[in-house]
Amino acid sequence: MGYKQLAQTAERGKFDMLFLADGLAVWDRGQGAEAFSRSGQFSVHFEPLTLLSALSAVTENIGLVATSSTTYDEPFHLARKFASLDYLSGGRAGWNLVTSSAEAAAQNFSQENHLEHSLRYERAREFVDVVTKLWDSWEDDAFLHNKESGIYFDAEKLHVPHHKGKHFSVRGPLNVARPPQGYPVIVQAGSSEAGQDLAAQTAEAIFTAQQTLTEAQAFYASVKGRLAKYGRSPEHLKIMPGVFPVIGKSEQEAKDKYEQLQELIHPLVGLGLLSGLVGGHDLSKYPLDGPLPDLPDTNGGKSRLQLITDLARRENLTIRQLYLWIAGARGHRTILGTPEHIADQLEDWFVNGGADGFNIMPPWLPGGLEEFVDLVIPELQRRGIFRTEYEGSTLRENLGLPRPVNQFTTKTAPEPVGVGSLA
Amino acid sequence: MGYKQLAQTAERGKFDMLFLADGLAVWDRGQGAEAFSRSGQFSVHFEPLTLLSALSAVTENIGLVATSSTTYDEPFHLARKFASLDYLSGGRAGWNLVTSSAEAAAQNFSQENHLEHSLRYERAREFVDVVTKLWDSWEDDAFLHNKESGIYFDAEKLHVPHHKGKHFSVRGPLNVARPPQGYPVIVQAGSSEAGQDLAAQTAEAIFTAQQTLTEAQAFYASVKGRLAKYGRSPEHLKIMPGVFPVIGKSEQEAKDKYEQLQELIHPLVGLGLLSGLVGGHDLSKYPLDGPLPDLPDTNGGKSRLQLITDLARRENLTIRQLYLWIAGARGHRTILGTPEHIADQLEDWFVNGGADGFNIMPPWLPGGLEEFVDLVIPELQRRGIFRTEYEGSTLRENLGLPRPVNQFTTKTAPEPVGVGSLA
Repeated sequence: MGYKQLAQTAERGKFDMLFLADGLAVWDRGQGAEAFSRSGQFSVHFEPLTLLSALSAVTENIGLVATSSTTYDEPFHLARKFASLDYLSGGRAGWNLVTSSAEAAAQNFSQENHLEHSLRYERAREFVDVVTKLWDSWEDDAFLHNKESGIYFDAEKLHVPHHKGKHFSVRGPLNVARPPQGYPVIVQAGSSEAGQDLAAQTAEAIFTAQQTLTEAQAFYASVKGRLAKYGRSPEHLKIMPGVFPVIGKSEQEAKDKYEQLQELIHPLVGLGLLSGLVGGHDLSKYPLDGPLPDLPDTNGGKSRLQLITDLARRENLTIRQLYLWIAGARGHRTILGTPEHIADQLEDWFVNGGADGFNIMPPWLPGGLEEFVDLVIPELQRRGIFRTEYEGSTLRENLGLPRPVNQFTTKTAPEPVGVGSLA
Repeated sequence: MGYKQLAQTAERGKFDMLFLADGLAVWDRGQGAEAFSRSGQFSVHFEPLTLLSALSAVTENIGLVATSSTTYDEPFHLARKFASLDYLSGGRAGWNLVTSSAEAAAQNFSQENHLEHSLRYERAREFVDVVTKLWDSWEDDAFLHNKESGIYFDAEKLHVPHHKGKHFSVRGPLNVARPPQGYPVIVQAGSSEAGQDLAAQTAEAIFTAQQTLTEAQAFYASVKGRLAKYGRSPEHLKIMPGVFPVIGKSEQEAKDKYEQLQELIHPLVGLGLLSGLVGGHDLSKYPLDGPLPDLPDTNGGKSRLQLITDLARRENLTIRQLYLWIAGARGHRTILGTPEHIADQLEDWFVNGGADGFNIMPPWLPGGLEEFVDLVIPELQRRGIFRTEYEGSTLRENLGLPRPVNQFTTKTAPEPVGVGSLA
């Protein structure tokens, strides 16, 4: 399997984690049949939890992070699967917690209309609250496995959650023991106000899209500034902007490589992709070589529309230039150049409060990842800003994140996460 | 992982498949704290789909069958995960389709009361209908991956299910290509009237519990007799009773081994287990050394209560004898003896219309499985009634089951499976 090679290459490069995005529908509307049949790589793919479970058997150290939406799933199912993956991988699981904004997803789950943005976030907050209660059902040392006495577990160390909320009523306990990491690492990617607040409350890593250091610093400060409200330390939430690295022996070689990749983007595919990223607006009625029109907010993801509009205005891009810009990096930051130049750019953000790390999105696979591992990682290591060995055996240890205390064993009440707990 | 060793041992024995049972709740009520703390091996366990995905990476030929309930899940999630497992394993996935009967499960999924028995089956029928439509979303050869033309798939070979039914409204298409096997092999275990009918309509293998050849033959004939109604051939549904084999060099050694195992069963655990199997009735108020009382049907699994009551009456067993009888085999058939005797018993059922195969449930792991593979399988092979090599690379090929035709490409309408299609 190609993914086995990718995971093992990333592990050779000492990456924290392999992250799989996900969606709950084929995006088969609006872009026209030809554009659709040319963009099939987004149509079908492995389901992340099953794929990462398989990869857990052929890797040793790398974290395995799956996207799972809170909008159309049940906390019990999700808590179980991530706990199970955490056991299979020896404490390397992570959950990228998202809400689903596509109308198409709603229609795959017997819903006429998808949930309104704020309701999706309200549901997400309660969802993660239920999931952590389920992970805490059993204390870490609940299972005695005492062959002589015949006692399998200590019944005093079982805590039945009995959750009753607005969206969920879940008795528990979970039928998986407390995960090796306590909780799998919780990741988020929403950058809207509601998304930032949810992240400050629950997330331990954030994937984000930032184009300039100034923007990145503002976002970094905004998110980190929200942590105190929830009694959390700024070090316990790692901010990781996406980077699309195009590597050459010289700047010219990198530029040529980028041009070559851009030429492979069919206009129908680029336009369809851009439409999807700005909330489903049909852009085919506007001139390709004219500016991006002002577009109203939809009920979809809000932050990305804003980001792309800002980019178009700042760089004065036509629709065509815009889709070419984002077709590779999907709205993330593109860095072209030599390994040294790319390391400079990463270091600049890392030391200047723009990032705690980066989500590397190679332009093509597996070659783009191999180049990064073979050329950029050693440069970062020479500078002493990237590990040369894994720090621990769990994802949490490698990210420098604390292992969560079981909420049912502390005298201090856990941070309330249920309905109405946010201002 | 211990499961890796088990899967590889079963594969060495040329077993068709490794099957994982499942449940959606910890059974923590009714049996009392002490019995509960002694029976923890039923409390926590891997989630089957993640575990089998991991095992797909360390096995080559053996089928991987996971139990998944239709009662509290969504067809889209389930269709995706099994399709993904089928790809990960190269066509070795199977789905043991069950309905959930435990009140405790309902309470983990925001339901006050679990669905009534007939509604659960109605929902299950529509669920499997939706799942097969999703698996058929893409024709087998829909994906062209044509680098020169840039065309990724043939849009004519996409069929959007647009399912609208009583329980589900699912547009589709699935975001996984058609599984290598067409459909993962569909397994069932319900033996009630509704369960047999659902199996005759949809299943390709049945796990069942039968104590005597006469009972097994009656069940075999009853299920196989229902297939014509759905236009199916009797060969396309394999009936596999459970067997709990206790193997010794002599009959006496097998009996001694069985006694030794029985002595390990604590009365509280045995009684709690029996209560669970007869639908949650509290049996602690009846004398341990008296007969099983007549118990009313609950809304739980019906067939197992009947089976256990029949067993108690036929063998004139006290409650204690009954729990000892079933604590190992869980109501399945126990065979004690030499490898030759066990082979005789299996052959007897196999050649006399009682079984197409068997679900082997070793008394302990991994030793009980290793003994079966090393001692009984070679005896069955010598008799020419068990394979010496796998017939193919997929579970379907090894079971001799046809690969399902895509329902959207046939002129003949597919067998209706939706609401109201059963008499």
